[in-house]
Amino acid sequence: MSTTLFTHCTLFPGAFSAVTDNAYILIEGNHIAAIGPMAQAPPPGAARVIDVRGKLVMPGLVNAHAHCAMTLFRGMADDLDLHTWLHGHIFPAEARCISPEMVYWATKLAAAEMILSGTTCVADAYFFSALSGRALGDCGLRAVIGHGIVDFSVPSVPDPAENIATVAAFIAEWQGKDPLITPAVFAHSPYTCSPATLIKSCRLAEEAGVRFFVHLAESRNEIDMIIDPRGTSPVRHLATLGLLGSNTVCVHGVWLDDDDLDLVGRSGTRIVTCPQSNMKLASGIARVPDMLRHGIAVGLGTDGCASNNSLDMFREMDMLAKIQKVAGGDATSLPAQAALHCATGGGATLLGLADIGRLEPGYRADLIVVDLHQPHLTPFYHPDLLVYAASGADVDSVMVDGRLLMAGRRILSFDVEEAKARVRKLASTAGSAN
Amino acid sequence: MSTTLFTHCTLFPGAFSAVTDNAYILIEGNHIAAIGPMAQAPPPGAARVIDVRGKLVMPGLVNAHAHCAMTLFRGMADDLDLHTWLHGHIFPAEARCISPEMVYWATKLAAAEMILSGTTCVADAYFFSALSGRALGDCGLRAVIGHGIVDFSVPSVPDPAENIATVAAFIAEWQGKDPLITPAVFAHSPYTCSPATLIKSCRLAEEAGVRFFVHLAESRNEIDMIIDPRGTSPVRHLATLGLLGSNTVCVHGVWLDDDDLDLVGRSGTRIVTCPQSNMKLASGIARVPDMLRHGIAVGLGTDGCASNNSLDMFREMDMLAKIQKVAGGDATSLPAQAALHCATGGGATLLGLADIGRLEPGYRADLIVVDLHQPHLTPFYHPDLLVYAASGADVDSVMVDGRLLMAGRRILSFDVEEAKARVRKLASTAGSAN
Repeated sequence: MSTTLFTHCTLFPGAFSAVTDNAYILIEGNHIAAIGPMAQAPPPGAARVIDVRGKLVMPGLVNAHAHCAMTLFRGMADDLDLHTWLHGHIFPAEARCISPEMVYWATKLAAAEMILSGTTCVADAYFFSALSGRALGDCGLRAVIGHGIVDFSVPSVPDPAENIATVAAFIAEWQGKDPLITPAVFAHSPYTCSPATLIKSCRLAEEAGVRFFVHLAESRNEIDMIIDPRGTSPVRHLATLGLLGSNTVCVHGVWLDDDDLDLVGRSGTRIVTCPQSNMKLASGIARVPDMLRHGIAVGLGTDGCASNNSLDMFREMDMLAKIQKVAGGDATSLPAQAALHCATGGGATLLGLADIGRLEPGYRADLIVVDLHQPHLTPFYHPDLLVYAASGADVDSVMVDGRLLMAGRRILSFDVEEAKARVRKLASTAGSAN
Repeated sequence: MSTTLFTHCTLFPGAFSAVTDNAYILIEGNHIAAIGPMAQAPPPGAARVIDVRGKLVMPGLVNAHAHCAMTLFRGMADDLDLHTWLHGHIFPAEARCISPEMVYWATKLAAAEMILSGTTCVADAYFFSALSGRALGDCGLRAVIGHGIVDFSVPSVPDPAENIATVAAFIAEWQGKDPLITPAVFAHSPYTCSPATLIKSCRLAEEAGVRFFVHLAESRNEIDMIIDPRGTSPVRHLATLGLLGSNTVCVHGVWLDDDDLDLVGRSGTRIVTCPQSNMKLASGIARVPDMLRHGIAVGLGTDGCASNNSLDMFREMDMLAKIQKVAGGDATSLPAQAALHCATGGGATLLGLADIGRLEPGYRADLIVVDLHQPHLTPFYHPDLLVYAASGADVDSVMVDGRLLMAGRRILSFDVEEAKARVRKLASTAGSAN
């Protein structure tokens, strides 16, 4: 069993009250074995010793919603509303470009960006998901991978009648295959999936014991698209179909009224907020402080990088805290600490991964090292700066499940140059056809 | 005269239509002498040749409002509204800590952060401004430096009756002293300066031929603080005092009604928007698209890094574009191109620096080199990505007035470690007393 000893850490274990200077962290195999003051550090013995003096060790970031393979489409179509962007640009580009090869390499490119910016776990939602699983597994990231379901033909499932069988096969293949990869079901939305499709998708997830993801109440437009004469909101639509509950993760949840919040809260349904994507597509601002007051578990996601356009979770935390303050006219409404929780322990719990998101003995060794030597982090009075001043580029090293994926900003787990070259080649076709 | 030849550039001269691949840029002395396709590049002769293959050359970013020396206070007090933050934390900390030494070193630390994130020109607004001038001059940055004026005692001017004479002396000393440094007047706000002080400050600026800066209409609170029985808004307050005009730069301008916009537009008054600071302090959202429709010149500023908490203008551009889209419910309301203009040519014009902000022959050689090799900038379909995906950490090299301040992310113009050490030492006192 390999052991690693981090020495001289500034330690941010996941709670503001517990920040300490000059700590040690002992990693045994894939988990955290011990943490304490340097004076009590064990003798290194056979352990690999990593001196992180002047650096901060914190839980790896959990991106609770992304479409990794969309790195191929970033920057193709910006400054558009969700409907125009999706139907006029992204769906056509996907129809042209999605292939197993595309999903594999574009997901690997996303993995490079995520590792370089401190994400250790991602909830992916796309097509050809076995290839996403292979790509993220090959890069060493932890991932929950929801296979996409829509009621129209896509390259991965040309006949939508085959959706449930295809996703069932994906889940069967990946359950227990790679300890870092957890399969899931991703029904795209109530406007691309019929009630019957949504029900079948959710039941499949329940029976397999995996999470059910669905985009919900993203834009005001969506309410018009699915509203019925009784005035059903997207949340009440799902409730009526019997799809709310603690296994369901609704992504976005921007247009929720008070009744919706009650329904979501009481049912234990979880929400992933994607503030930057919602801002860039002018979709709206999710009522995150109200969600937290309703006891709803909230995770933070970047969404796909074609609508964001970044997978940097530091940037996302900053945007989350700031948009909520200004939206509510209250600078205390979503403090830095809450943003950090959404992006670490909150997201982990929401994804059903109870043993990541905090640095404590017994937890998995998913951690990142942030270089505090930067001028913009000097002086470092408080972990608030992780939200309001740090960026992904300040991440020095990344460990997932006890394995070092990056050290000194050099990715160790795979060949990034190959991924870039492959996606550039795919882009030469994708871009010109747009 | 020193000459530099940049070869194999991806060139973003400042307008989206003119992006080209494989260009050369010839710098002679402090200005751009020629630009063209590589095939027509001049023989290098005695020029220093810098091959920027795979990198993008663009105008240096213009931060139109910052309080540089506040690097000492970043992270001391977050998640607070403007009034509590200012009166409960920042003003007391300033009363304790501001000194010539503090301003010099904390401004140098800000210079490091700005150079590392691609800012080549900053409009600073603080106290002991001769020291800001020396610090920024020593670092090689271009700057407009507004000496602060408030009606209460501050360490730099213990007796407010001396304000005008002190600032007049500062201007007299710095006009023509350093070609990169332009002095200016900064009256803090209508709630810290009486009408008489505002008038004297503005007249001083006019007589000296320098810009007059004032924080205006930052928070809703401010309206209450200066409102009179006739219902005067901050803008109408300034108009009544005769202080609007093309020499006046109003910073923030968040709470402007339609009449205010008319007054500002017709008078040629300029506005600097600071979206991140306004969001973090829950001050509100400036009506930037309406300002642009009124023909108002709008620059972009970070504000001080204690309220933002970053001086990275890439992050600021991104936030500007996104907050405007979601605020107006219109994804086209402030496109990437408009954000880039505010942060380059727009800010330069607003500051009265007509020969920076674009890459064209005859303009000053204030430029930055952005490394496009990053995974998050691959593929690079469009300069939109400079706003929505790039960050300051992607800046490889920085040139101001023909002088290379940073190359390969190494700052060449001054000793950054010394600045960090000096500010850390100042912080050990500042922080503990808070």
